[in-house]
Amino acid sequence: MQRVRYYWDYLGLDEVLAAQRLASSEDGGDPAHDELLFIVTHQAFELWFKQILWELDAVIGTLSQAPVDERDMGQVLHRLERINEIQPLLVQQFAVLETMTPLDFLDFRDQLIPASGFQSLQFRLIENRLGLDPAKRMKIQGSHYTSRLSREHAARVEASESEPTLLGALDAWLARTPFLRFGAFDFWAAYRDAVTTMIERDRQIVATNANLDEVSRQQQLDAFETTVETFATLFDRERWEQLRAQGRRRLSHEAFLAALLISLYRDEPAFHTPHRMLRTLVDLDIGFHAFRNAHAQLVHRTIGGRIGTGGTAGHEYLEAAARRHRVFTDLFDLATYSVPRDELPELPDDVRDQLRFRFQPS
Amino acid sequence: MQRVRYYWDYLGLDEVLAAQRLASSEDGGDPAHDELLFIVTHQAFELWFKQILWELDAVIGTLSQAPVDERDMGQVLHRLERINEIQPLLVQQFAVLETMTPLDFLDFRDQLIPASGFQSLQFRLIENRLGLDPAKRMKIQGSHYTSRLSREHAARVEASESEPTLLGALDAWLARTPFLRFGAFDFWAAYRDAVTTMIERDRQIVATNANLDEVSRQQQLDAFETTVETFATLFDRERWEQLRAQGRRRLSHEAFLAALLISLYRDEPAFHTPHRMLRTLVDLDIGFHAFRNAHAQLVHRTIGGRIGTGGTAGHEYLEAAARRHRVFTDLFDLATYSVPRDELPELPDDVRDQLRFRFQPS
Amino acid sequence: MQRVRYYWDYLGLDEVLAAQRLASSEDGGDPAHDELLFIVTHQAFELWFKQILWELDAVIGTLSQAPVDERDMGQVLHRLERINEIQPLLVQQFAVLETMTPLDFLDFRDQLIPASGFQSLQFRLIENRLGLDPAKRMKIQGSHYTSRLSREHAARVEASESEPTLLGALDAWLARTPFLRFGAFDFWAAYRDAVTTMIERDRQIVATNANLDEVSRQQQLDAFETTVETFATLFDRERWEQLRAQGRRRLSHEAFLAALLISLYRDEPAFHTPHRMLRTLVDLDIGFHAFRNAHAQLVHRTIGGRIGTGGTAGHEYLEAAARRHRVFTDLFDLATYSVPRDELPELPDDVRDQLRFRFQPS
Amino acid sequence: MQRVRYYWDYLGLDEVLAAQRLASSEDGGDPAHDELLFIVTHQAFELWFKQILWELDAVIGTLSQAPVDERDMGQVLHRLERINEIQPLLVQQFAVLETMTPLDFLDFRDQLIPASGFQSLQFRLIENRLGLDPAKRMKIQGSHYTSRLSREHAARVEASESEPTLLGALDAWLARTPFLRFGAFDFWAAYRDAVTTMIERDRQIVATNANLDEVSRQQQLDAFETTVETFATLFDRERWEQLRAQGRRRLSHEAFLAALLISLYRDEPAFHTPHRMLRTLVDLDIGFHAFRNAHAQLVHRTIGGRIGTGGTAGHEYLEAAARRHRVFTDLFDLATYSVPRDELPELPDDVRDQLRFRFQPS
Repeated sequence: MQRVRYYWDYLGLDEVLAAQRLASSEDGGDPAHDELLFIVTHQAFELWFKQILWELDAVIGTLSQAPVDERDMGQVLHRLERINEIQPLLVQQFAVLETMTPLDFLDFRDQLIPASGFQSLQFRLIENRLGLDPAKRMKIQGSHYTSRLSREHAARVEASESEPTLLGALDAWLARTPFLRFGAFDFWAAYRDAVTTMIERDRQIVATNANLDEVSRQQQLDAFETTVETFATLFDRERWEQLRAQGRRRLSHEAFLAALLISLYRDEPAFHTPHRMLRTLVDLDIGFHAFRNAHAQLVHRTIGGRIGTGGTAGHEYLEAAARRHRVFTDLFDLATYSVPRDELPELPDDVRDQLRFRFQPS
Repeated sequence: MQRVRYYWDYLGLDEVLAAQRLASSEDGGDPAHDELLFIVTHQAFELWFKQILWELDAVIGTLSQAPVDERDMGQVLHRLERINEIQPLLVQQFAVLETMTPLDFLDFRDQLIPASGFQSLQFRLIENRLGLDPAKRMKIQGSHYTSRLSREHAARVEASESEPTLLGALDAWLARTPFLRFGAFDFWAAYRDAVTTMIERDRQIVATNANLDEVSRQQQLDAFETTVETFATLFDRERWEQLRAQGRRRLSHEAFLAALLISLYRDEPAFHTPHRMLRTLVDLDIGFHAFRNAHAQLVHRTIGGRIGTGGTAGHEYLEAAARRHRVFTDLFDLATYSVPRDELPELPDDVRDQLRFRFQPS
Repeated sequence: MQRVRYYWDYLGLDEVLAAQRLASSEDGGDPAHDELLFIVTHQAFELWFKQILWELDAVIGTLSQAPVDERDMGQVLHRLERINEIQPLLVQQFAVLETMTPLDFLDFRDQLIPASGFQSLQFRLIENRLGLDPAKRMKIQGSHYTSRLSREHAARVEASESEPTLLGALDAWLARTPFLRFGAFDFWAAYRDAVTTMIERDRQIVATNANLDEVSRQQQLDAFETTVETFATLFDRERWEQLRAQGRRRLSHEAFLAALLISLYRDEPAFHTPHRMLRTLVDLDIGFHAFRNAHAQLVHRTIGGRIGTGGTAGHEYLEAAARRHRVFTDLFDLATYSVPRDELPELPDDVRDQLRFRFQPS
Repeated sequence: MQRVRYYWDYLGLDEVLAAQRLASSEDGGDPAHDELLFIVTHQAFELWFKQILWELDAVIGTLSQAPVDERDMGQVLHRLERINEIQPLLVQQFAVLETMTPLDFLDFRDQLIPASGFQSLQFRLIENRLGLDPAKRMKIQGSHYTSRLSREHAARVEASESEPTLLGALDAWLARTPFLRFGAFDFWAAYRDAVTTMIERDRQIVATNANLDEVSRQQQLDAFETTVETFATLFDRERWEQLRAQGRRRLSHEAFLAALLISLYRDEPAFHTPHRMLRTLVDLDIGFHAFRNAHAQLVHRTIGGRIGTGGTAGHEYLEAAARRHRVFTDLFDLATYSVPRDELPELPDDVRDQLRFRFQPS
C-alpha cells in the first residue's frame, strides 16, 4: 500500500507540540501566561543547536579528508554560511523572550530552580566542536563547567573535548596548503620587508602626530615595541609555538601562514573560496559572541543583579564568557599583518599560474 | 522527595529532539543532508505558531469582556507586540531555509509528496483567529482551502471560522467606546467640515499641478470623485454597512468611527495605549504579509515554476494570498481620513477632561 | 606645510549637515518636528543610491572586458554582495520613517507639493543600470516615467537607457562561457533526457494524487502542458528568442544555458564564484523588491488612499512596480530546470578536468 | 510667482552628493574604490546623529516642564522609540562597512591620518545629552576625551557637559511623581516585607541547592550578603546618596523609588506610558552599547591589533567604552527589586483610583 505523507506526521508534531509542559500549572494551579514563551523559545534554541551540530559535523568530516577535493570546498563554505544565517535567528529569539518582563518571569521562576541554561548539553557540544580551548572555559561558581549537567550529559561533553574540532580540521587543511613553499622564490623574505616598511610608517605616525602630548606619545611608542615583537613571532616558528603553548595562539605556525597567504592573495581564483571561508569563520565567532551578549542582556534585564536559577552570578558571568569563549581569534589577527596592495610582493609567474583554473577564460 | 528540575527534562528534549525523522533515509538510504534543515525549520515554525495562538487567545479573551478593565489594556498591547516581535523571526527562518538550493531540495523532495505547507493546521487557525474573511480565502487549485487537511484537522479549522476573532473582539471593544456621542457638541459635523476643506485642497493640487497633461489630469479628477464618495460613506451608516456586506469594509461603522477618533486624538492620555494597539494591529497585518511574501520567494527560488509538493501552483498562489489575506485593512485606511493637527476640531473641555487621569500631574 | 586631516572637514560635514532646510519653517513659521526626519531619511537614501551606482558601474566595467580575468570575479561578487548588504539598510530606513504618523506628516505635507520620491534621479539610474526593460516600466498617471523629472534629469535618465547594463554585461559574460560546447559529448541531449524523466514524474504526481478532485486534476494537467512547452523552448533557440522579443525572457539563449550549466554543476571549482554571483543577482532583485514594498507600505500607512504629493495614485502604483520592475527573472527560473543530483548527466572527464585548478590539492 | 518644489532641490542634493571628496584621488591619483563607501557610511552616521540630537533635545525640553502635561508623554515615548528604531540602522551600517576588507582599507588609510571617528562632534554631544557621567569617560591614550577635537568642537562638547541631560530631566520628572507619599498607607513598609521574604527564599535556594559543593556555596552566601546590603540602600536615602556621590548610582533616591513604583504597578493605566518609557530608555542604552560593540568589531576585523588612524589603541578601547559608557544602569537594576505579582502589596483603593482615567469604561 502506498504511504501518504502528511505534513503533521512527517514533522512529528504530535510529539513536538505536546512537549510544552508548564511547571506553573503542574500542581493544578493556573498556568503562568509567559511560561509557554519561555519553553517555546528554549525548545527553538535546541532545535537550531541540533542543526548547527549537524552542519559542524559535516564540515569537520569534509575538511578532515586528506586531500580535500576542491569540489567539496563550495559545500563546506555553504554550510558554514548556513550556521551564520542561523545566528541572527538566535539573537532575535532573545529579543522575543525579552518581551517577558521581570514580573512576568517571577510568576514561575521559582519552579524552575535549579534548572538553568547552563545545562544545555547541545550548546556545550557546539563550543567543543568549534574548538573552544578548555583552558579558557569560565568556571561556574568555582566549579567545572560540566558540574551542572547530569552525569550522562557531563560524560558526553567531556568526551567531546577530545573529538575532532572545526579549528583542528581547519588547521590541518591549512597546514597542507601546497603554496607555503615557493621553490626558489623566497616569498616570506619579500613579505617581511613589506611589513617592516609598513610598521615603520606606523611608528612615524605616532612619532610625528601633533595631537599627542609627550606622555601619551611615549606610551604609544612603548606599545609599538610590543607590536614589533608580535610581528617577529610570525617569522619564528619556535616563538610562535611558545605562544601557542600558552594559549595565546591557537593555529599552528604553518596554518597561520597559509591563512595569511590566502588573505593577502585572495584575488587569485584558487583563493576565492578559501578566503570567504576564513571570513565566515570570523563571522561565526562574532555570531556566537552576539548570541552570548544577547543572553547576558536578557538576564540583566530580567533578573537584574539577582542570582540565576542555576545558582550562578547571572549576566556578569555571561558577559565574561562572551569575551573569553572565542575560538578563531587568530583569524581576526590576519588584519594586523595586511600590507597595502601596492606593497605586496608580486607572486612569481609559476606560482600564480598554479592558482588559476585549467581552462582559459574567453 | 524533592523534585530536582533539570533543563533537558523540563523542556521535553527527549521528545523534541527525537522528532526529526528523515524521509530520505527511511528505507535505509543515505540521508539527504539538507532534509534536517527542512524539518527543523518547519518544526520551529509550528512552535512559534503555537505561541502566537496562545497570545491571540489571551488577547481575544481580554477584549471580549464588557467592559474591559483599562488596567488590562497594557497587557493586551504587550501581547500583540510580542506576536509582532515573533514575526521577523519567521521571516528570518525562511532566509535560513533559502540556504537550501534547488538541487539540495530535489535530493528529498519527491519523498515529501503530497505533504505540503498548506497542511499547517495551526497557520489556518491563526488566520481564522485573526478574523480573515472566509470569502476572501484563496482556493487551492479550485478546491476549498481545507481540502488538503486530514478530516480531523479540516473539521477543527472549519469550526474555528465561527469562533471569536481578534477582529470581532476589537470591533466590539471599539464600538463600546463612550466617546462617540459627545452630548451637545456635534463633533462629526465639525470634523466633516475639516475633511471637506482638506479634500478640496487636494483637488486643487490636481487641478493646478503644472506637471500634469490634460489626459492624466482628467483621470485624476475622476479618481477624485471616488475618494469623495468614499469619504461620504464615513458619515452614512447605511452605505457603510452596504460596503461591509460586500466585504469592502470589515469594521462596523461605530467601531471605525471610534478607531478614527482614537487616531485623531491620540495625544489624549486615555488614547495613548489604544492608539498604539491600532498601530500594532497594522504591524501584525504587515508582519503576516511579509511572512507570506518570504514564503512565496522561497518557493520561487527553490522550485521555480514547478508545481509544489502538495500539487499547488507554487509561488504565484502564495503571492496572491499575501495580497488578499489581510485582516485589518480598515486600520490602514485611517490615514486617509487624517486632517492636519491645526485643522482638527478642538475637543470640548468636558470631553477632553474625561480623557485624562484622575490625579493631577505635579 | 603638512595637511592635517580632520574628520569634520574630510567628511564635508559643513555642507552635509547644513543641507536640512525645513520647508515648514521657510516662511518664518514653527518647524514641523518630523520634517527633519523626512529630509534626513531621504538624504540617507540618496547617499546609499550614489554608493550603489558606484558599485554597479565598477561591476559592469569589469564584466564588460573580454575576456574577464578570473582573478577579478572575486571582486565582482564582493561588490554585488555589498549592494545586497546595503539593501536591508534601505528597508530599515523606511521602518524609521514609519515612526512618522499620518498626523505628523500632514503638518508639512502640503508644502512639499509637487515634489515626490518619483523624482529621485539616482533611483531611476539604478533601475536602468541594472537593466530594467523600458517596456515593463509603469507609467505614472498615464505619463512617461521621466515626466516628473526636471528636463536635465529626464535627459540623463533617458540617456542611461542606452548605456551598458548589468544584465547586458552578465549576458555577454555568460554567453562567452567556453563550456557550452563539449566536443564530442552531447551534454544537452543527456540533460534533456534527465529533464524529461523528471517532468514525467511530476505529471504522475498530479495524475495519481488522491487529494485532487477531477476538475482540479484536469486543470493541473492542462497547466502541465504549459510547463512542457516552457521546457521545450530551452532546447530551441528560435522559440527562445521569440519569447525574448516579447519581453518574457531577458537573457539570450546561450547566456541562459551557461547560467543553467553553472547552476547544475556549481560544485565544480570553476563554478563556485559564478554560482554565487548568480544567486547574489537574485538576492539583488529580491532586495529591490523588498525596498519597493517597504515604500508602498509606508505610503499606505501614512497617506492611506489619498493621492501622493507628486500627484500619483500612491501605494498601489508602488506595489505594482514592485511586481513588474524585476530584472533577473530568468535567474529565478533556473530552479525550474534543476534535476536531482543523481539524475544529472555526469560530465566527461576532460570537461570536468578543465573546471579544476591547475595545482593538485595535497 | 508660485514656487515649484523639486525633490532634488528640497533635499539639497547638490551639496549632499558633492561632499564625497576622495583623499585617495586628491593629488590626481586613482581613487581607492572603497573610499567612497567609507565616506558615505560616515556621512550617513552623522545625518542620523543629527536626527538623534533633534529628538533628544525635544524630549529633554518636554520632560523639563513642571508639571509635564500627561498629554505630551505619548510624544516623549514616541520620540525615544524613534531613536531606538534608528539604532539598528547604525549597527547595520557597520555591517555594510565590514564589506571593506583590510586590504581595501589599506589602499587609502594612510591618507586619513590623523582624522578619526573619535572626532565625531555629534556623537560626543549625544553622549553628553544622554547624561553620560564625565567621570566614567574613557581617556584616549591618557588624554582628555576632547583632546582629538578642534578647539571649537572641544569647547562645544565641554559646554554640553553642563547643559540639561535626558537623565537629569528624567530624574526631575520621576522625583515629582505624586504617588511616592500615600497618605496613611505605608507602602514602603509593606513592600520591604515582600522583598525580605523574597530574598530569604533566594538564600534558601543557595543553602539547599544539592548541586553546589561547600566552597561555592559559601562563596554564594557571602555574595548574598552584598545583595542584602544593596537592598538596604533602597530604604535609606543617606546611603543611597553616598553611592550616588561615588557614581555607583545615577538617579536620585526619590526618582529611583518612583521608577520602581511604576515598574511594579505598571498595569495601572497611569503607568502604561511611563513604564514603556523606562523600558525604552533601557533599550536606548542597549542600542548604543550595540553600536559601540559593532564599531569595535569592525575595527578589530579591519585593522586587527594595529593602532587606529587617530593614534588610539583600536578595538580594545572601543570595547571598554561600550562597557563603561552606559547611562541608564539604574533602570536595568529595577529587575533586581521586582517581587512576584502575588506578593506585591495591594495598592489602597484611593491610590489605585487616582491612577485610572476619569471616564468609566463601558
